[in-house]
Amino acid sequence: MKVNRYPQKETWSGFVKRPAIKREKLAEIVAAIFDEVKKKGDQALINFAEKFDSAELKDIKVSEKEVETAENLISEELKTAIQEAKLNITKFHASQIPDIEKIETTSGVVCWRENRAIEKVGIYIPGGTAPLFSTVLMLAIPAQLAGCEEIILCTPPDKNGNVNPAILYTAKLCGVTKIFKTGGAQAIAAMTFGTESIPNVYKIFGPGNQYVVAAKEFAQNYNVAIDMPAGPSEVLVIADENAVPEFCAADLLSQAEHGSDSQVIFLATDENIFNQAILETQKQLEALPRNEMAAESLKNSHFILMNSINEALEFSNLYAPEHLILAVNNFEKYIPQIRNAGSVFLGNYSCESAGDYASGTNHTLPTNGFAKNYSGVSLDSFVKKVTFQNLSEKGLKNLEKTIEVMAEAEGLFAHKNAVSIRLKEQNERI
Amino acid sequence: MKVNRYPQKETWSGFVKRPAIKREKLAEIVAAIFDEVKKKGDQALINFAEKFDSAELKDIKVSEKEVETAENLISEELKTAIQEAKLNITKFHASQIPDIEKIETTSGVVCWRENRAIEKVGIYIPGGTAPLFSTVLMLAIPAQLAGCEEIILCTPPDKNGNVNPAILYTAKLCGVTKIFKTGGAQAIAAMTFGTESIPNVYKIFGPGNQYVVAAKEFAQNYNVAIDMPAGPSEVLVIADENAVPEFCAADLLSQAEHGSDSQVIFLATDENIFNQAILETQKQLEALPRNEMAAESLKNSHFILMNSINEALEFSNLYAPEHLILAVNNFEKYIPQIRNAGSVFLGNYSCESAGDYASGTNHTLPTNGFAKNYSGVSLDSFVKKVTFQNLSEKGLKNLEKTIEVMAEAEGLFAHKNAVSIRLKEQNERI
Repeated sequence: MKVNRYPQKETWSGFVKRPAIKREKLAEIVAAIFDEVKKKGDQALINFAEKFDSAELKDIKVSEKEVETAENLISEELKTAIQEAKLNITKFHASQIPDIEKIETTSGVVCWRENRAIEKVGIYIPGGTAPLFSTVLMLAIPAQLAGCEEIILCTPPDKNGNVNPAILYTAKLCGVTKIFKTGGAQAIAAMTFGTESIPNVYKIFGPGNQYVVAAKEFAQNYNVAIDMPAGPSEVLVIADENAVPEFCAADLLSQAEHGSDSQVIFLATDENIFNQAILETQKQLEALPRNEMAAESLKNSHFILMNSINEALEFSNLYAPEHLILAVNNFEKYIPQIRNAGSVFLGNYSCESAGDYASGTNHTLPTNGFAKNYSGVSLDSFVKKVTFQNLSEKGLKNLEKTIEVMAEAEGLFAHKNAVSIRLKEQNERI
Repeated sequence: MKVNRYPQKETWSGFVKRPAIKREKLAEIVAAIFDEVKKKGDQALINFAEKFDSAELKDIKVSEKEVETAENLISEELKTAIQEAKLNITKFHASQIPDIEKIETTSGVVCWRENRAIEKVGIYIPGGTAPLFSTVLMLAIPAQLAGCEEIILCTPPDKNGNVNPAILYTAKLCGVTKIFKTGGAQAIAAMTFGTESIPNVYKIFGPGNQYVVAAKEFAQNYNVAIDMPAGPSEVLVIADENAVPEFCAADLLSQAEHGSDSQVIFLATDENIFNQAILETQKQLEALPRNEMAAESLKNSHFILMNSINEALEFSNLYAPEHLILAVNNFEKYIPQIRNAGSVFLGNYSCESAGDYASGTNHTLPTNGFAKNYSGVSLDSFVKKVTFQNLSEKGLKNLEKTIEVMAEAEGLFAHKNAVSIRLKEQNERI
């Protein structure tokens, strides 16, 4: 926990710096895995599952029966919760489907955009202790709403060759078309090239460890798109004198528990709130059942006392946090000042975990400062926006001079001719 | 010109293949240039201008006076054309500014998205014989509409150290904030790192030669975003018995003249139209004043006779063209079948050059098959869509169970606690 009071602006660049990510060494390992998957297909995936996941697999595809069984393995309570979350996420993402608006830019010239689903998408869900079924919701729901035909999901098996039932249940609920037991860089390679069982896809989504991150970058060399660049998860909380220190501490810890590299920043304008939040964070940390990660992450957290909310927002825009919590009074008036953030939580009752699970917003967000130039995942991430135009003879006539003069000035005579020849024809007929 | 009649579907994969792009050798050259620009800043750019552009520069920044003078160097006719085009491009891109729609996903839980401009963007405009002022329109207009604060433009100087006046005029007209005389990979490096004169930017847009393309990819290693992956320009024309062979030929040639690597595909369902279009293409080619490029590109073009418009659309979706021209009757009924295309031109009078210059749509589009997974440039390319949420106490109470059950099932106890602690507080107070 690094505590600072009213630091000079000149020193801010030190606070907003993210830990450097070294990837050079991974490139070779990832390239070798891609090569192996490209050559040997499913067999390579079976071999890697044995090597990396200690799982003996006969078939990498999750069977219908396994999916059905999964439904009986999880509690009714959890099923209800997942269904409730799905409703809200669906509502919010469905509102992102645009109406088609035809614009007549010039008389006889009509232009518009239509969404077209990316036909084949792949979702990667990491293994490990926490089964991230919430990420299945966040990626499969907009994929299905967008109309993606093939929505495949890859996730590593456990030692017994099984996939966590909550993941299987959620995947089926959200329209995932095929589920495969494969993880790491090999899963990304399989979705890039396709294997006997796994279809290749046009875009790959989802979080993962450093190998998965490097593999997603590498996949772009094969014309596959990815959701966004990756980095450790982050929260920045801004608190005024009306904030509740206990709530702020809980939010900071809920970010810190994601991993030892999680970034946690607390900015307060009230010294009393500031000091209480520090004490409360330590107190709540001790009470957490699984607190090693959070404790480790908190060591690098910054607690900074600020002169004003405006100054705090200036800092936040420089940092460009994945999650920004505004635990301040009259938060409405500060909204226009927010320039760089992935997702913003307003007021004392908008905790990050609401957005992580169930409020309806997406939790796949830009980290590592990428909130300066990238959006989080939304329905838009699963479509292409295709432009259409229809010109009548009269419409083209209205643009004739403009196009001809510009094409000639750019030295593109065939461009000019494509207009002239059409209107010469028209003139002849008139 | 490669002519095929009713090829079997099994053979289509041969037609849709793009030429492989080899970039391995460029990486070293580009890395060295980035290194030099990072170390020496403006001086490196002045040195590179001497080496690559044979230009002796004192200052890489285009002065106010140069911009003013440019206005007097171009014809009134061209100025009027550029202004007309600007009006239409502005109209269409302004229509892409969304209304803010607040969604109450659950009682007391309100979620929405707001656009936030990418604060600093860079536009690259190549040099060479054709001054691409139309690309300045296509990139600077949406940047200004989005509200980008810093819109910088880099373009190589000619031997006399000047920039084409049409580029300067258009840049000023469209709100470009600073213009610099630097081209190639060094311009991309300058916008990535910043120099004494050139601000670093968060996203780089624009076309360029193989060095520029490689440099844009390389810039992504430094957390800069780019508009989209690059490739040679393409058109695919689908014609039925109502198409006009002269128009089709003119459209094919207007694509072919872009460069010797341009991709040109003609699909017809009527043998008569097919044969006439082939003859007409050769005839128009000979009449073109600057036809070396077009002649070279046409050698690799495919003229394919198809069984039906449906079959042609199936082929087109597999190819995923940058530009798709539907020169067919009743084109409306085929629109839903179009899945993969950058921009679509409907009917006999919607020529590609209309969209290239003046109809209002953007001409920066996905090529090389990327229309399967990328959109063209639009207003969206210059903003981040930030999600916001506000939960009342009651709203959080409504989600309490859902979040707590899910967080616990994912083993994230601090996530659960961020909710519990807020509602415990509420309960105590009630």
